[in-house]
Amino acid sequence: MQKLITRLAQKNPSKIILAVLDGLGGLPLNGRTELETAATPHMDRLARISACGLHTPVAAGITPGSGPGHLSLFGYDPLEHQIGRGILEALGLGLEIMNTDIAVRCNYATMRDGVITDRRAGRIPTDRSSKLTELLQENIPNIADVKMTFAPGMEHRLAVLMRFPHILDKDAANIPDTDPQLEGRPPLKPSGSSQSAESVAAVAEILIARAHELLKHEEKANFILMRGFSGKPDIPTFEQAFGLHALAIATYPMYRGLAKLVGMHAPELKGTVEDEIAFLRANYDAYDFFFLHVKKVDSFGEDGNFAEKVKRIEEFDQLLPQIVALNPDVLVITGDHSTPAVVRGHSWHPVPVLLRSPYVLGGLCSSFSERECLRGEFSIFPTVQLMSFILANALRLKKFGA
Amino acid sequence: MQKLITRLAQKNPSKIILAVLDGLGGLPLNGRTELETAATPHMDRLARISACGLHTPVAAGITPGSGPGHLSLFGYDPLEHQIGRGILEALGLGLEIMNTDIAVRCNYATMRDGVITDRRAGRIPTDRSSKLTELLQENIPNIADVKMTFAPGMEHRLAVLMRFPHILDKDAANIPDTDPQLEGRPPLKPSGSSQSAESVAAVAEILIARAHELLKHEEKANFILMRGFSGKPDIPTFEQAFGLHALAIATYPMYRGLAKLVGMHAPELKGTVEDEIAFLRANYDAYDFFFLHVKKVDSFGEDGNFAEKVKRIEEFDQLLPQIVALNPDVLVITGDHSTPAVVRGHSWHPVPVLLRSPYVLGGLCSSFSERECLRGEFSIFPTVQLMSFILANALRLKKFGA
Repeated sequence: MQKLITRLAQKNPSKIILAVLDGLGGLPLNGRTELETAATPHMDRLARISACGLHTPVAAGITPGSGPGHLSLFGYDPLEHQIGRGILEALGLGLEIMNTDIAVRCNYATMRDGVITDRRAGRIPTDRSSKLTELLQENIPNIADVKMTFAPGMEHRLAVLMRFPHILDKDAANIPDTDPQLEGRPPLKPSGSSQSAESVAAVAEILIARAHELLKHEEKANFILMRGFSGKPDIPTFEQAFGLHALAIATYPMYRGLAKLVGMHAPELKGTVEDEIAFLRANYDAYDFFFLHVKKVDSFGEDGNFAEKVKRIEEFDQLLPQIVALNPDVLVITGDHSTPAVVRGHSWHPVPVLLRSPYVLGGLCSSFSERECLRGEFSIFPTVQLMSFILANALRLKKFGA
Repeated sequence: MQKLITRLAQKNPSKIILAVLDGLGGLPLNGRTELETAATPHMDRLARISACGLHTPVAAGITPGSGPGHLSLFGYDPLEHQIGRGILEALGLGLEIMNTDIAVRCNYATMRDGVITDRRAGRIPTDRSSKLTELLQENIPNIADVKMTFAPGMEHRLAVLMRFPHILDKDAANIPDTDPQLEGRPPLKPSGSSQSAESVAAVAEILIARAHELLKHEEKANFILMRGFSGKPDIPTFEQAFGLHALAIATYPMYRGLAKLVGMHAPELKGTVEDEIAFLRANYDAYDFFFLHVKKVDSFGEDGNFAEKVKRIEEFDQLLPQIVALNPDVLVITGDHSTPAVVRGHSWHPVPVLLRSPYVLGGLCSSFSERECLRGEFSIFPTVQLMSFILANALRLKKFGA
């Protein structure tokens, strides 16, 4: 399907804005969902003149992580393009990833007499572990011709990026975790079942030994465990797949990282949603496609904080006229997955979406909510098809067949 | 897809009840369907607070048999996992099937001068044919090391189970019917195109000859025709596929048999729907998942008896509070296919479903019917996805990707 879209894609001067309210979809508390509870006059007005529906990020009943949620929104089949745990961790910590990299998420751990006695090194404070990660970076800048990059995470966490001097094959990251899972057991030795994976495992083994040597006098964090070895997924870029020159506007590193995986430009950015919109406006002439990411909606859903999630939705709605004022050819408002406050986490529920363009039916939904979107002209559809609808509405897809 | 579900499945103490009203879906007579005509206050109340929709058992326009209808409900792709005719017949006659078995449905027939003059032996009375089947069982307990089990059916019908001492390969049952289809023709000789099928065909040939020898003085039923050679389908069990310990509650052997094919526990049971519910209650602590099958709804649909089908739906509705009182984490009410009285048989129409759990939108349907379910949050979806929704609502599926 994606190949067909790529074949039919054509360029034109249209502008597309995809606003993603992370974890937007919800469930009722006292009869009304977060979206139904929130006062959202601007989104409601748009919903009345837009194509609306609900999209299923991965498949019926499947709860998506942020990786598959965003890949689907970007038009890539999330079952075909899976993002490794190490890569996602590295993206979340703001590391740039190249196709010669192997990323690993690591834990500081406590080792005594050859066995792991604490897999999380007593969850040491972040300021302490960050110092240790700096120490590793200073003392292990490379292992042979492999450049090492260490990124501090929260508490016992860190990520390691091993940059090889050449591209590795697909099997290279196929290395089981060294974490023994149970305490009282020795750590596992990194091992690979192919030649390329063996060469990566050999680097990892040296890294573990050198880190242990540097950390051996630490009371708790005297060892590192490595998990989720993964390479950069082989995904066609947004430009290649859709002919779009795209800008990602996101304040959280992971979402900029996901956008970069598909070749979007994703400069570092801090600030509020209003700052994000200002950035959108400032860069509006330079790109075709804008992915604008609003994080806090999801965060409060994850906390089970219904009222705050509602407030964040309302906050976005108040700012929406600033986006509408740009008068994009296609404006889409949706989420990457649902995060109902009553679930306190991501969920499998399809996500409401509205798409405004001159080429929609409209007139089917009275407001923007899960239940109203069900009446919309898109009905329920796989998220991966959203980009097709977007491109079509931007008149960026040629006719198929004569 | 099923592999993904299996990979994500996790156990927890939740309880799931799947109530299947066989042939539930209907069509209007004087403007209202069976469900719309029936007084169903309890199902209507549930529909208002449940996720509702319609599911398509096999594909658009396809009328499913009971086998594919139930396999889909159980979460197995009915196109991938096909159940042979012989196996279905044997299940319907209450035979236990092992993976070393080949099942065949047979007809008593009349042979004169080497040709079949009546393919159904004048539809001899069941009590007479049962006696003949007993005769065959007594005289042909085995053929070489193959154990033979004969099961009497209605009128000219019987089933034969050939139990081999070892597992046969997938081709072993690939044996054309011996029924010549037209009277005045000789029966066909059993023949296989692979070595394993040849060995099965050889046993069948001996069986036909020995049966003819035993029956040769019968005026009508002096021969047997064999059809639908089939082996036990290779289906992962419910426990393997979903991590569910499941109990089937059904009074008809075929439905217990279908449940056993996927590894459900399916003890023999007689009685009314109320007896079935009592059995559910008595076993509620011992299982995770309960498949409760209500047959009569379909039976009256098949007879074209609209009023009786309505009554059976009402009867179930009156008993529903007893099921609701168990307070399962997920309660589903649906059918395995539609059997509109006006069609007098199974039909291709999607089947109404309601799913009650704490994680639904609800509030979209005012009652439980084909037309109301169309407004529900599930919309129209493939039946095979129902198990994914069930597992998700039972919080038995881990997140996909990070």
